Amino acid sequence: MNIGFIGLGIMGSGMANNLLKSGFNMYVFNRTREKAKELEDNGAKFCSTPKELAEKSDLIFMMLTDVRACRAVSEDKDGFLESLSKGKVVVNFSTVHPNYSLELREMVKEKEAMFLESPVLGSKIPAQKGELVILSAGDKEAFEICTDAFEKISKKAMYLGDVPKASYVKVVNNEAFATSLTAYLEGLAFAKKIGLDPEMVFNILNSGALSNPYFEFKVKKVLNDDFETHFSFENMKKDLGYALSVADEFKCYCPTLAAVNEIFKKGLNKHAKEDMSAVYKIFDE
Amino acid sequence: MNIGFIGLGIMGSGMANNLLKSGFNMYVFNRTREKAKELEDNGAKFCSTPKELAEKSDLIFMMLTDVRACRAVSEDKDGFLESLSKGKVVVNFSTVHPNYSLELREMVKEKEAMFLESPVLGSKIPAQKGELVILSAGDKEAFEICTDAFEKISKKAMYLGDVPKASYVKVVNNEAFATSLTAYLEGLAFAKKIGLDPEMVFNILNSGALSNPYFEFKVKKVLNDDFETHFSFENMKKDLGYALSVADEFKCYCPTLAAVNEIFKKGLNKHAKEDMSAVYKIFDE
Amino acid sequence: MNIGFIGLGIMGSGMANNLLKSGFNMYVFNRTREKAKELEDNGAKFCSTPKELAEKSDLIFMMLTDVRACRAVSEDKDGFLESLSKGKVVVNFSTVHPNYSLELREMVKEKEAMFLESPVLGSKIPAQKGELVILSAGDKEAFEICTDAFEKISKKAMYLGDVPKASYVKVVNNEAFATSLTAYLEGLAFAKKIGLDPEMVFNILNSGALSNPYFEFKVKKVLNDDFETHFSFENMKKDLGYALSVADEFKCYCPTLAAVNEIFKKGLNKHAKEDMSAVYKIFDE
Amino acid sequence: MNIGFIGLGIMGSGMANNLLKSGFNMYVFNRTREKAKELEDNGAKFCSTPKELAEKSDLIFMMLTDVRACRAVSEDKDGFLESLSKGKVVVNFSTVHPNYSLELREMVKEKEAMFLESPVLGSKIPAQKGELVILSAGDKEAFEICTDAFEKISKKAMYLGDVPKASYVKVVNNEAFATSLTAYLEGLAFAKKIGLDPEMVFNILNSGALSNPYFEFKVKKVLNDDFETHFSFENMKKDLGYALSVADEFKCYCPTLAAVNEIFKKGLNKHAKEDMSAVYKIFDE
Repeated sequence: MNIGFIGLGIMGSGMANNLLKSGFNMYVFNRTREKAKELEDNGAKFCSTPKELAEKSDLIFMMLTDVRACRAVSEDKDGFLESLSKGKVVVNFSTVHPNYSLELREMVKEKEAMFLESPVLGSKIPAQKGELVILSAGDKEAFEICTDAFEKISKKAMYLGDVPKASYVKVVNNEAFATSLTAYLEGLAFAKKIGLDPEMVFNILNSGALSNPYFEFKVKKVLNDDFETHFSFENMKKDLGYALSVADEFKCYCPTLAAVNEIFKKGLNKHAKEDMSAVYKIFDE
Repeated sequence: MNIGFIGLGIMGSGMANNLLKSGFNMYVFNRTREKAKELEDNGAKFCSTPKELAEKSDLIFMMLTDVRACRAVSEDKDGFLESLSKGKVVVNFSTVHPNYSLELREMVKEKEAMFLESPVLGSKIPAQKGELVILSAGDKEAFEICTDAFEKISKKAMYLGDVPKASYVKVVNNEAFATSLTAYLEGLAFAKKIGLDPEMVFNILNSGALSNPYFEFKVKKVLNDDFETHFSFENMKKDLGYALSVADEFKCYCPTLAAVNEIFKKGLNKHAKEDMSAVYKIFDE
Repeated sequence: MNIGFIGLGIMGSGMANNLLKSGFNMYVFNRTREKAKELEDNGAKFCSTPKELAEKSDLIFMMLTDVRACRAVSEDKDGFLESLSKGKVVVNFSTVHPNYSLELREMVKEKEAMFLESPVLGSKIPAQKGELVILSAGDKEAFEICTDAFEKISKKAMYLGDVPKASYVKVVNNEAFATSLTAYLEGLAFAKKIGLDPEMVFNILNSGALSNPYFEFKVKKVLNDDFETHFSFENMKKDLGYALSVADEFKCYCPTLAAVNEIFKKGLNKHAKEDMSAVYKIFDE
Repeated sequence: MNIGFIGLGIMGSGMANNLLKSGFNMYVFNRTREKAKELEDNGAKFCSTPKELAEKSDLIFMMLTDVRACRAVSEDKDGFLESLSKGKVVVNFSTVHPNYSLELREMVKEKEAMFLESPVLGSKIPAQKGELVILSAGDKEAFEICTDAFEKISKKAMYLGDVPKASYVKVVNNEAFATSLTAYLEGLAFAKKIGLDPEMVFNILNSGALSNPYFEFKVKKVLNDDFETHFSFENMKKDLGYALSVADEFKCYCPTLAAVNEIFKKGLNKHAKEDMSAVYKIFDE
């Protein structure tokens, strides 16, 4: 089985590496070739266009930043839609707007190929360790075809039904993570401003029932002034925007989300490329 | 050592019971006597006024709903300040506005008594089990005098320095719990409105790094439509108000807190006496 | 010159009437024919489809509620795009998402017809009186062709440049009206809740520099409990949603807009068909 | 009739000048004497303490920045409460927290003096021109005694009833001005960010029903990058804080106010001394 992997950023390179190490025959594409270097050294073949990649692959996997990037590798000239054909499977691991996922499905269907939206839970480290959680929606048959590959990159892969159900769950998941962490970090910055030691406050909070690995991981880095990117600020902003857009479409009352989305917009110029936990700095300046 | 305990609500009755069972000689006062019944049956003596209670007790403990209730038992006619005298210790377990705590300390000091503000972490069940966390600030000597008593009602008692440091930590703690839980519940209600099964979404979220006993406890009850009060909605609103007031005094930028405080105001008429997790219903109507 | 007018709601009927009275040969279309009755009685010809209307008209004018309605009369079967041809002019008076306006322009251009987006300022009464302000963007030549017709329905018509510039201005305009009025009404409801007579407070405020016809018109009705629709709550919600969507696209920090948009979402179930000033009731319950 | 005037800032100096020019015998006090220079040159007598001022005056007028400043000149050593006596009238023009106004009334009453809270509407220029609007609450007799003096500094003086009714109206008034202007300026900054000329947009908006002298005055200065202080940013922040505090006390749902208050907190470090319209810069950076 030949796998084509498009998008070799923080997440994609970890995933593609795990697939390559597991013995899959890998074709890769990335806008800037240098990010493919390590994979090529280990035996992956670089394709000069997504179109070429789709010709050579049975499974076309994409892990890209946003809708724009997905459109570029599929709809633009030399995009994979040009060579996509019956029986192939397109899997989009990227977190995208659910409405775009519906659009992409239609374009794939027109080529008589199969489609799965498969956003993942987990960031840099789970991607490297093959311990992501995969949320899939779309063609059931495609999900079965991908079982082996998914096992190499995840600790769990779930089939949730029709598109865009997996995108919806992903959007809610990221919203819940971002808004609850932002609320928590706002509290710590507040503690600091009123003269408390934020580390002492964190230790007290973290000894209680709200203690969890996510807050602990993020807060410890924040308290060490470490904002190295595991999940970028601009990507989280993008996902918050997707959530708010869906909330608006369904008329859901989401004032906390709306407030947090504004905080992220406020910080976007300064913190785009840092970790999303840099939202702390917006409170602490 | 005679302990006088004022305030026998959800929290206070649990704490007073544990002290009584540990062998302390207990005097109790509550606005409505019926809540003291079980304690009286087990040997506690009911005082008809806080003044009488303070005459008979070495340690005067209070666990009340808000500043108004604290003022009523201390400053009003027959309040404990009337009989408070040198060497006695006043411990306020209630969560109050930090500025009031400073005021109360002054009034206690004028009587040459000692003062501790000692807000606690934990709600109904930890109070019953004697597993609270006590945050104390004020007279170091008073903290030492209370060591034995504190051991009977808490798993940990911390001395944090001057008043209102413990109140500040408590305010931040409750803010962090309330705002992060509200953010999370907003996400689940959103999931439901866009057609997802909130239980399925919770299971996915709860299998990840954000999983924690607090969210799990609250969400499971919410999904079972169980809003029995562990921490009342109106009390949480009160604490959010304290937090926002302190934030305003120190000019801290707290947009998530501000948004959540409004949500709680919106729901106060309907949900005051329910558990604070009833905030979910405001999103899900 | 034959004018086809699609959409005979509160706004459209007023506009079409003024055109008819000015002597234009009018073709009209509306989803429900009864709304066309008065116009037909006065000489307008009802077309059974937008396609038929576009065959018979030189200028195709649309005044519809939202993007969905615009798509229905243009892209659906028997939509006007089917019969649109070279030299004809499509003018969309509807307030729509700017990105949709760009899409519609493309579809019109493919037919070699001309396009103007021409959202209007003013609601029911200016529409009836022919005193709207027209904001136009698109083909300059089309704007000139429409000069006569625009004069009959407006007190001023402005040409602003390329699509979607007029949509952008309209979105900002409606945002400014909605958010400032909401802020003002929130203040009056607040005054009432703290025991002041809202009418007295309004009189004081209205005697100062902030006094304006818009607030006066809206507040007087609110104080008389009159929520008859001049600009519907659901339409204003829609426009706030457009504004927030554009703000997100351009990463504009708009926390007041975001807060107001949530208030409108909260009230949508109850107040959709009332005047947008029913937002007052959300504060006053 | 001898008038003592405490507080000679932007507002107070304009008011004291008008009283002096009208022939009243004026005693003045200000923390820094240099601000009294012009008044002294014109015949006012400077008192070295508020206590001295109250000895010499029948009417004690105060126009100060905030509660802290009011407490300093009344309760501190050499404050006017020390020499206040029966029959004298204390008038507080300052905008203060309504609860403080109640406190001050009590302190004045203990001296058997009369009290009026008399916050004013209007800023720098109306103060200079004697065209303020005075909102009074408190002793009716005091209001009558002050009639002559009030006529010299205002175009209208209203008696509203008991303390803190005038403070409440003032708080609502400032909230309505600040929140609606902030909403409007947010819209203009948004227009600029999406590529529109904010002046063009303002001209369009200002030609409609929302046009008013307040927005026009403020926006024109903003568009000229003129942030000279008429009403300082920090004072408006203070008033928004009062409003939110009262809203919390009465459990009023005020999400727009809450959002705007956060924006002002965000900008306080940078813009404290500028005009409150500098809130525009927070959106436009």
